[in-house]
Amino acid sequence: MQNKKIVIFGSGNVAFHIGKAFLRNDYSILQVVGRSEKSTTILSELLNCSSNIGYNNINMDADIYILAVNDSSIAEIVDNVSFGDKLVIHTSGSITLDVFKSLKNYGVIYPLQTFSKQREIDMKKVPLFVEANNEQSMRNILSIAKQLSNNVELADSEKRKTLHLSAVFACNFTNHMLAISEQVLINHNLKFDYLKPLIIETLEKALQQSPLNIQTGPAVRNDHITIDRHLELLADSEEYQKLYSFVSESIIKMYSKQNK
Amino acid sequence: MQNKKIVIFGSGNVAFHIGKAFLRNDYSILQVVGRSEKSTTILSELLNCSSNIGYNNINMDADIYILAVNDSSIAEIVDNVSFGDKLVIHTSGSITLDVFKSLKNYGVIYPLQTFSKQREIDMKKVPLFVEANNEQSMRNILSIAKQLSNNVELADSEKRKTLHLSAVFACNFTNHMLAISEQVLINHNLKFDYLKPLIIETLEKALQQSPLNIQTGPAVRNDHITIDRHLELLADSEEYQKLYSFVSESIIKMYSKQNK
Repeated sequence: MQNKKIVIFGSGNVAFHIGKAFLRNDYSILQVVGRSEKSTTILSELLNCSSNIGYNNINMDADIYILAVNDSSIAEIVDNVSFGDKLVIHTSGSITLDVFKSLKNYGVIYPLQTFSKQREIDMKKVPLFVEANNEQSMRNILSIAKQLSNNVELADSEKRKTLHLSAVFACNFTNHMLAISEQVLINHNLKFDYLKPLIIETLEKALQQSPLNIQTGPAVRNDHITIDRHLELLADSEEYQKLYSFVSESIIKMYSKQNK
Repeated sequence: MQNKKIVIFGSGNVAFHIGKAFLRNDYSILQVVGRSEKSTTILSELLNCSSNIGYNNINMDADIYILAVNDSSIAEIVDNVSFGDKLVIHTSGSITLDVFKSLKNYGVIYPLQTFSKQREIDMKKVPLFVEANNEQSMRNILSIAKQLSNNVELADSEKRKTLHLSAVFACNFTNHMLAISEQVLINHNLKFDYLKPLIIETLEKALQQSPLNIQTGPAVRNDHITIDRHLELLADSEEYQKLYSFVSESIIKMYSKQNK
């Protein structure tokens, strides 16, 4: 793809990181289009381009329009902007390609990563899953994705949804278990720092071997005495007690099935 | 403590790693006492000492007896062995000190870590939580623990139980979420490797900041459209579907409470 003029919709975490990656790869970023005045201005200054709130005055001189927005905003943007034959790309894990079916050239670049503005991300290592509506769009999208990352794969909408689902377990739910462990310690005036060597080892083990094969602890041992003691300790929080029971039961079921 | 002759009960993961740590610190390990012929022999060969199965022929020449066994075996050992005034130490997170109340000198060294025989652990960095029944036992146990690790803390039985409970969330439950994400990918012929950059970033973020403050994903955004789509995708597994709903609800509750 010769021309590298782009407009980015969105001013959140994905827009922020993908925008910086485009800038590093010498794309000419014309505009950031957002809803929030503050974060749109900040990102446009960072990317050294103009900013625009809403659907009027969108710069239509770009070759590529990146929709790094909330899932629910993608269809709304399609309804409100005349993209003609420009290449339009969204970055969502769970929105299927046909959200764009009224357009001519379109596709998806889904980055399988969790982004926060405060943290640097090496985009070259982020797996990017791409999909497109025709051969020309695919050629262009592959070329763009390969400039951003060394880890580009094809994925249709179904595969992408499954990846997104697995990411919710691996990232959000994993983090929630850590958040509860932190809350339990805070409630007893204990430092979360104590858990850090354990957390690091748990993760290194899971990544080197396989989380399915390395489970330890009371549930996988079917140690109901310890489980009951822990439930007693959680007597002041019905919520955590239920979660403890539920996840323990799920572990017991997973491994009793495997042993049969 | 002048004399460093010890006998280790147990031949599992904790006995294996704590035994190796004692050996590195020039303790004279007299015997490994176990239930499983095979693993007891292997560990005794590794520690260059005799092995013994059951309660006959236990070497009573040691100064220190380490009970690195299943929780349920601790009381059984106390009932079956005459320890006299020897120092007896267990390594369990959830067994209170009074399991030893019929003895004279005793305590606990609880290593807050997950151990597997296949993996090296730097014991110097493992937090060891100690408790003892009298001043002399405490002096001896502190001296032993400080030889094994640079990270020694006092913890009574209640504090230790809370640490163990939080460790179940941080280690076993975290690993279970990863195991399900792996299973979801396997079920769809996708590689778990795709998730590794995401998992590493999730963990680094949680450890640098605080898991309570960095939650992302559909649940914390209250994005019921994505949640419902994921539940549909999990239609072939009622078990995972329930877990997905349950953990999502728990995240929604945690953060709606915080925002009030």
